[in-house]
Amino acid sequence: MGRKSMREEIVTAALDRFHARGYNAAGVKDITDAAGVPKGSFYNHFDSKEALAIVALERYGAGRRLADLTDEAVPPVERLRRHFEFLRDEVVAYGYHRGCLYGNFGSEIADHSDAIRGAVRDSLDTWTTLIVATLTEAQRAGAVRTDLAPEVTAGFLVNAWEGTLIRARADRSTAAFDAFFTSVFELLLAPA
Amino acid sequence: MGRKSMREEIVTAALDRFHARGYNAAGVKDITDAAGVPKGSFYNHFDSKEALAIVALERYGAGRRLADLTDEAVPPVERLRRHFEFLRDEVVAYGYHRGCLYGNFGSEIADHSDAIRGAVRDSLDTWTTLIVATLTEAQRAGAVRTDLAPEVTAGFLVNAWEGTLIRARADRSTAAFDAFFTSVFELLLAPA
Repeated sequence: MGRKSMREEIVTAALDRFHARGYNAAGVKDITDAAGVPKGSFYNHFDSKEALAIVALERYGAGRRLADLTDEAVPPVERLRRHFEFLRDEVVAYGYHRGCLYGNFGSEIADHSDAIRGAVRDSLDTWTTLIVATLTEAQRAGAVRTDLAPEVTAGFLVNAWEGTLIRARADRSTAAFDAFFTSVFELLLAPA
Repeated sequence: MGRKSMREEIVTAALDRFHARGYNAAGVKDITDAAGVPKGSFYNHFDSKEALAIVALERYGAGRRLADLTDEAVPPVERLRRHFEFLRDEVVAYGYHRGCLYGNFGSEIADHSDAIRGAVRDSLDTWTTLIVATLTEAQRAGAVRTDLAPEVTAGFLVNAWEGTLIRARADRSTAAFDAFFTSVFELLLAPA
């Protein structure tokens, strides 16, 4: 098997380092060291750490399994629940570390980089749009209360999830996840 | 009027710099420069930037107006709403910058400092406990649905708020706040 391209190795290492350490704590040299490439090669592939961060965000998004949200073989509410369970299980598998790169960059960098802020916003929008469709389908099936607006609730769910990750990392326990699943699936969405 | 103590000036500057820049981006020299004190004086007052961050978190907590949550002159649900409106208005006044220091440190640093992680967890716990009491009182008054557990819902509200701030900063609009208020007050908490 051939060696991956140097650019690809930098992106893979950057996603890992940004996710584990945060934007400011992961320097270009940390990333090129992790990628096993010379630091000097970095600027042959990327204009800046900021530009690399945006590519890393896209790569992170590709791992969110968002296509599961459109899998019509699974009833819509169950699909939504499994989606958040997948995201939860990933954080638990990391020992309650790392959280979500969207939320991490949104918290640490959005105020200071319009480019990263825009990429975070677009990532959250893409995700939210899929949940709007899932909630709309669930409402039509009578599985979600009809007096909520899917556009509003989907955004709220995504935001609530990002905050749930902050709390789960602070606690290193499932309590915040449990509160999310109970509050969302048993209370907020459930038909009267 | 006498000059504030040097320690106090460092704490005030640290809260401002950590809140505006984040933990890693705010160096000790940035903080002592902002405080107008010599960098060398820092370690006369604090063992480390980490120790200062914990004091800054406490100072931040003191500005959350948590006592408003126990003001019996205001009906409990209205009190809760005004509390989150106060927190929202603060972020809007900063031009959708800064967010909540608990969430920022929780996202950026909790994985890497057990001391800061513990301080974030304790801060969120203190806040959550007051909301548990407010929700309990609201349930007794018939103003909140009785089939929710205040301990679970209060934690969820705090977490949802932290994520709402991430989204509001990414968007620089009120949309995430509006989704929070609608989802929480009109749907999640409202009695059937």
